[in-house]
Amino acid sequence: MRALRVVGEGAVELADMPVPHGDEVLVRVTMSGICNTDLELARGYMGFRGTLGHEFVGVVEYGPMTGSRVVGEINAGCGTCERCTRGDSRHCPTRTVLGILGRDGAHADYLSLPARNLVRIPDSLPDATAVFVEPLAAACGVLERCPMAPGTRVAVIGDGKLGLLCAMVLQAEGLAPLLVGKHPAKLALARGIETALVADAARRGRVFDVVVEASGGESGFQLALALLVPQGRLVLKSTFHGTTAFDAARIVVDEIDVIGSRCGRFAPALERITKIDVSPLVTDVLSLDRGEHALREAARPGVLKLLLAR
Amino acid sequence: MRALRVVGEGAVELADMPVPHGDEVLVRVTMSGICNTDLELARGYMGFRGTLGHEFVGVVEYGPMTGSRVVGEINAGCGTCERCTRGDSRHCPTRTVLGILGRDGAHADYLSLPARNLVRIPDSLPDATAVFVEPLAAACGVLERCPMAPGTRVAVIGDGKLGLLCAMVLQAEGLAPLLVGKHPAKLALARGIETALVADAARRGRVFDVVVEASGGESGFQLALALLVPQGRLVLKSTFHGTTAFDAARIVVDEIDVIGSRCGRFAPALERITKIDVSPLVTDVLSLDRGEHALREAARPGVLKLLLAR
Repeated sequence: MRALRVVGEGAVELADMPVPHGDEVLVRVTMSGICNTDLELARGYMGFRGTLGHEFVGVVEYGPMTGSRVVGEINAGCGTCERCTRGDSRHCPTRTVLGILGRDGAHADYLSLPARNLVRIPDSLPDATAVFVEPLAAACGVLERCPMAPGTRVAVIGDGKLGLLCAMVLQAEGLAPLLVGKHPAKLALARGIETALVADAARRGRVFDVVVEASGGESGFQLALALLVPQGRLVLKSTFHGTTAFDAARIVVDEIDVIGSRCGRFAPALERITKIDVSPLVTDVLSLDRGEHALREAARPGVLKLLLAR
Repeated sequence: MRALRVVGEGAVELADMPVPHGDEVLVRVTMSGICNTDLELARGYMGFRGTLGHEFVGVVEYGPMTGSRVVGEINAGCGTCERCTRGDSRHCPTRTVLGILGRDGAHADYLSLPARNLVRIPDSLPDATAVFVEPLAAACGVLERCPMAPGTRVAVIGDGKLGLLCAMVLQAEGLAPLLVGKHPAKLALARGIETALVADAARRGRVFDVVVEASGGESGFQLALALLVPQGRLVLKSTFHGTTAFDAARIVVDEIDVIGSRCGRFAPALERITKIDVSPLVTDVLSLDRGEHALREAARPGVLKLLLAR
C-alpha cells in the first residue's frame, strides 16, 4: 500500500508498507490532513521514523465496526496503567501516538488503531469536514483545560490553522475572542471574529483574562505575557520545539497561570463540528500520491490545511 | 534616623533619612528580616533605589492605631483602581511595594505604610517570630494559588528560607512534602519532614502531583518538570532573575500547569505562625547599625535568616 513515511532526518518517502496485524482494527483511510506537527516530525522532531499523519477519516475494514465511517483518537494507551484505567490514555506513560510516537500514521491507505479509539461519524459529514475532528478536538481542549465564563476577555495568538480553529471554537462558545496574527489574509478567514496584527495587539496592554498561545514561537509567548492581566491564564497550545526563554519573574510577580494543552476529547469536537465552518481553512485537496509534494507545499507561507484524498 | 539604603548599583549605605509625611501611618520598626530579594535589589534588580527591607514588626507611632504592635502587608495599592476596589492591592498596576518598588522599606528606624496595610499582633508573639509573618504569608500563598487535597503528593525544591517555610506550611496543613535541596545541613532543619538531595530526588521520576519551585534556579525548574506527573502542577514561588530557558514542549505534551505565586495574605500566616517553629531558620540577630555587614553575611553559603534588631 501507499504510505508517506519518514525514513531519516529530513527524508520522506512514499513507500509500500505491509498491512498491520494484531488485535487492532484495520481502517481504510479515505482522507487525511497535514498538520504542522507532520512537518516538524519530517524535520527530525522527536526522532520519529515511520508513516506520518494523525488527522484522518476512514472506513473500518474488519472487526466489530466493519463498514463504519470513523475518526479516531490518536493516543493508544497500554490499557492497564493507572492513567488508562481511569480513562486517560492520552497521558499513559507508555502510549503510542498515531503518526507521532511509535505508531505508523494516517497518510497511508490503511492504518490500525485499538477499536476503543474509533468514533463513528454520520454519513452526512463529508470527509473534508470529518478530517478536522482531531484538530478541532485539540482546539476544544483549550476549554477543558481552561474553562471560561461568559464575558471572559480572551485573545488567541497565531493565525495558523490551530489559532484559527481555537478562535472559531471560542466564538462558537459565545465568547468574543481577539485573534492576533501576522498575516492579514489568514486573519480575514476568521469570519465574524475580531482580529489584530501583532503590533496593534501589543498596544492594547494588559487587558486579557486569558491568552491562548497558538503560534509556537517565543515572541508569541512574550506577547501573551504582555497582554495578560495579573493572575491571568496563558494557555500554551502549540508544541514548542527546543527550549524557550521566558520571563519567569513576570509569571511569579503577576501570578500568571501557564496551562499546557495538547490533545482534546473527540466528543466535544463532534458536537461542535457542524456549527463551525472549517472549509475556509482548506487550501487544497491532493492525492496521497502527491504526498511528498504536499508536505513541501504545507510549509509554504500562506498555505493552511492541505488534505490528502485516496 | 538610620536606614539601609541602596544608592547605586551594588552600593549600599547606612544613611540618615527624613521622617515620612503624608496621610500614612508611621511605624517604629523594632525588628526586620533580610530576604534574598534584598540581596537581589542591592545587586541592581529592578533598578531599586532607596531603603531596603519588607519583613518587619514594629509599633505604630501615631494615627488611629498608635501604640499597637503590628506587622504589615507590603503592597500599597492606589485604592481606586478595579483591582484595589475588589480588595486586591497586591496586583494594583500602580502599586508601590515596601522596600521593593517605589517605597522606602523596613531596614530603618521608621517606615510608613497605609493604615489598612497594618495588622495588629498579640503581645505574646515575640519580634523574632512576628517578623516571619511576611515570608510565611508568601509560603501560605502556595496553598491559595494551588489548593491541595489530603494525600496530594508534593515536593518542594530549594532548601533556602523560602523552601523550608513552604515545606513547613505544607506539613502543618497535614500533607507530607518531600523537601529537595543541595545542603544536608539546611535540609536537617526541616524537622519531621522527608528530605532528599537533588540527585536522589531526580531518580524518583514523575511521581509528584505538585512541585513547588523555591530555588529560583533554572535547574530547579527542570527538576520540577522531571518530577511531575502528567497534568501535574508546578508552583513557581521564587522570583527568577532574567530569562529562564525551559522545555515548553514538555508543558504542552504533559499538560502541566505552571502557577506563579508571589505574596500571600497575612491572615492565614498569622493563624499558622504559632503552629510552625520558625526559630531554626534564624542564623543570627544583629543591630541595624551592622546592616551593611549583615547584607554581605546573608549572601554567604549556609546562612539563613538574619534579623536586624533596633
